[in-house]
Amino acid sequence: MKEALQNNPPGEWIPEIPDECIRLHCGYPAPALVPDEEVKAAVNRLLEEEHDLPLHYIGSPKIIKLKEQVLKRLKERGISVTEKEFLITSGACQAIDLIARILLDEESIVAIESPTYMEALEIFQNYTKHLISIPVDKHGLQTDVLEEILEEREQKGLALPRFLYTIPSFQNPTGTTMTGERRQHVLELANRYNFLVVEDDAYGELSFNKSFPTLKAMDQNSRVLHVGSLSKIVAPGMRIGWIAGASEIIHACAWFKKDLNHPFAQAVMAVYLANTDFNNKLVAMRDTYRSKCNVLTSALEQYFPAASWYVPEGGYFVWMKIPGADTSELLTHALAEGVSFIPGQYFFKEQATGTEYLRLSFSYADEQEITEGIRRLGKVAQAYL
Amino acid sequence: MKEALQNNPPGEWIPEIPDECIRLHCGYPAPALVPDEEVKAAVNRLLEEEHDLPLHYIGSPKIIKLKEQVLKRLKERGISVTEKEFLITSGACQAIDLIARILLDEESIVAIESPTYMEALEIFQNYTKHLISIPVDKHGLQTDVLEEILEEREQKGLALPRFLYTIPSFQNPTGTTMTGERRQHVLELANRYNFLVVEDDAYGELSFNKSFPTLKAMDQNSRVLHVGSLSKIVAPGMRIGWIAGASEIIHACAWFKKDLNHPFAQAVMAVYLANTDFNNKLVAMRDTYRSKCNVLTSALEQYFPAASWYVPEGGYFVWMKIPGADTSELLTHALAEGVSFIPGQYFFKEQATGTEYLRLSFSYADEQEITEGIRRLGKVAQAYL
Repeated sequence: MKEALQNNPPGEWIPEIPDECIRLHCGYPAPALVPDEEVKAAVNRLLEEEHDLPLHYIGSPKIIKLKEQVLKRLKERGISVTEKEFLITSGACQAIDLIARILLDEESIVAIESPTYMEALEIFQNYTKHLISIPVDKHGLQTDVLEEILEEREQKGLALPRFLYTIPSFQNPTGTTMTGERRQHVLELANRYNFLVVEDDAYGELSFNKSFPTLKAMDQNSRVLHVGSLSKIVAPGMRIGWIAGASEIIHACAWFKKDLNHPFAQAVMAVYLANTDFNNKLVAMRDTYRSKCNVLTSALEQYFPAASWYVPEGGYFVWMKIPGADTSELLTHALAEGVSFIPGQYFFKEQATGTEYLRLSFSYADEQEITEGIRRLGKVAQAYL
Repeated sequence: MKEALQNNPPGEWIPEIPDECIRLHCGYPAPALVPDEEVKAAVNRLLEEEHDLPLHYIGSPKIIKLKEQVLKRLKERGISVTEKEFLITSGACQAIDLIARILLDEESIVAIESPTYMEALEIFQNYTKHLISIPVDKHGLQTDVLEEILEEREQKGLALPRFLYTIPSFQNPTGTTMTGERRQHVLELANRYNFLVVEDDAYGELSFNKSFPTLKAMDQNSRVLHVGSLSKIVAPGMRIGWIAGASEIIHACAWFKKDLNHPFAQAVMAVYLANTDFNNKLVAMRDTYRSKCNVLTSALEQYFPAASWYVPEGGYFVWMKIPGADTSELLTHALAEGVSFIPGQYFFKEQATGTEYLRLSFSYADEQEITEGIRRLGKVAQAYL
C-alpha cells in the first residue's frame, strides 16, 4: 500500500486538548465571526425555494452563482480568470491535494517554505519524499536562498522543482508577509527555472492595515496556481475553496475532482454570499483580528521577555521562538495548566529544526482568554525552562 | 501531467439534457423521497443547539453519532466492524477513489464487471490502464469466467488483480443481483488468488422483495471492502458514504482523506437519522421503486416488443438491449422527442461492446412520465431503427 501507511494516523500529532483548555493552538475563525445564523437562514431559503433540488448530485443552479461571486471577488483583487481557469474545491486542502495529484510523482521535487502549513506538508509527502525547504524570515520566503539552491541544482544537473508552495501573505505558521520585491523575485525565478508557483492565499483578505498584491495578480506567464478558501473568512466546516490558474491544469484537477463535489454546501454558500455585504463583514473581521493580535503580542511582551516573535500584518498566527526550549515538552506542561499551542516541529520537514519554536493562534480564543492563556504559558515556561 | 488529462472533460459524455425532458437517464432518488423538510429541520436544530461549532473544521460532536448510526445499520445487516474498520467518506465515490489511491499503481490490475458503474470505471482509469472486464448476466457477475481468467493468468505467470470491483445487489447499470452461490464463489476465488473485493452496496437496501446477504457479511478472511452510501436512500447532495474493511486499509484511506472531510454535512445527517424512523422510510422507498419499476417494465413490454431486458429485484435501473441499435445515435433523436437515457457504451471499458444497450432509470421520473417517456422512446426507436 501507499507509503502514507507508515505515517502517524491522522490527528495523532498533538495530545488531546481538554475542553476547558484555552485554545491558542487552533487556526479556527473567532466563534462570533462564524455566521451560523446566516447559514441557517441560507439553508432555509434555499430548501424553501428549491426543495429537493439542492440535495441531488448536480444540485442547485445557484452553484453557478457561487463561482461568479468568487470570480468577482478575485477580480476586485486584481485576479482576472475565466471560468475555464477556475475550479471550486472542498476547501484549500482539496485544492492542494488535486494540484499535487496531477503534478507530482514519486520523483518530483517540491520547494516549500520552512516552516510551512502542516497539512500541505503532509499532503505533499503523500506524493513525494523530495521536498526542498526554503527558509522564511520576517519578510517571508527568502527568495535569495531559493535562487542559490536553484542555481546550484542547475549547475549540478539536478532536477528542478515542479512547483514552489508558498503562503505569501500572513503565512501559516509564521504570520510573515512577503515583500513586493520578493514576490517579483519569485515570479522571475519561476520563469527562469521553469517551475509553477502554488500560492496559498487563505489569509490574504485578513490584512490589519494595507493589503498586498497576490502573486497571481502579478503573474504575467500564468505560472501561478492561486488557491483560496472561505474557511478563514466564513466557516471552515462548509469546505469551500478554489483554484485559479492555467486552464489545462484546472481541467486536469476538475477531472480528478469530478465525483468529489459538494453541491449542497456550495449552494448554501452561494445564497449566503448573495445576501451578505461581505466587504462590510471583512472590515469587522480585520478589526477583530487586529485587536486580538495586539492583545496577544502585548501579553507576550509582558510574560515572555526572553522570547522573540514576528509581529504579523494580518492573518491568525504569531510565531514565537523561546531560546533553549523544547516546545513539545512545554506543551504537556501547558496543557496541564489549561492552555494549548502547536509546537514548532510540526511545521518543518526537518522536525528537529522547530524545537525552540511554537505557533500561537489569536483567532479563536477571546481577548481575556488570550491574555490569561499567555500568562499561564509564561508561568509554565519559567517553571520548566 | 497525469494521463487523465487525455480523457474527455467531466460531464462531456452526454449531450445537454433539456429541462423539459423526461429524465430516464439519471440515477437520482425520487424527488418525493428526498427529505428536504427533514434536512432543513436538522440544520435548524443543529445550529440552534451548537451555534458555530458544526461550522468549524472538527465540527459537531454529533459526527460520532453518525458513525454509530451507520455501524448499527451495518450490524443489522450482518456486518460487524469496529471503529478502526470503518471510515465515513464523501459519498461512495470518495470511498472508491481512496481505495484505488492506496491500493493501485500504474501496473496494478483491477477486475471489473462488464458493464459497470461509469464513475468507478473512470476513477480506476485515473490510476491504471489494466482493467479486466468480467461479463455480467441475469445472475450478476459471471464468476466462472472470472475463475477461468484467473487460472489462465496464473498459468501464464501473469499478474493477478489487486481487487475485484463488484456491485452484487441491483447492479448499476444492469439491475442484476448476484446469486448466493456466485457470492460464495467470489470469496473463494479472492482467497485462492489472493485479491481483495470492493463491494459497492449503494443500492443494497433497496430490494423489492427479499434482500441478499452482503459479501462483507459472508466474508471470513476480511478480504471485502464494503462501500456504502446514503446517496440513494437519503440525499446524494449530502455526500455521505463509507468504507468497512480491514483496519490497515481503513487506516491508510483515513490518512489520505484526512483533510477532505465534511463535518457540517455529517452532523446534519447525524441529526436527521437520530430523528427519523429509517426502517419505516425504507419500506416506503421500496414500495415506491418497486411500483415505478413495474410501470417501466410494463411500458417496455408494450412499446419494445423486439427488445430484451433484465427484470430487477431492486435498485434504480433497467438494462435494455435493442438488437441492431446504435443507442448513442438513438439518444440524439430521443432528446429531440423529450426523453433521456444513458447509452450502454459508457458502462464498458470496451465501449463498442455497449452499442446495442442502454440504461433506463425508473428512480427519478414519476410514473406518468415513465410511461410517456417509454412511449416516446418506442416511437423514436421505430422511426430510426
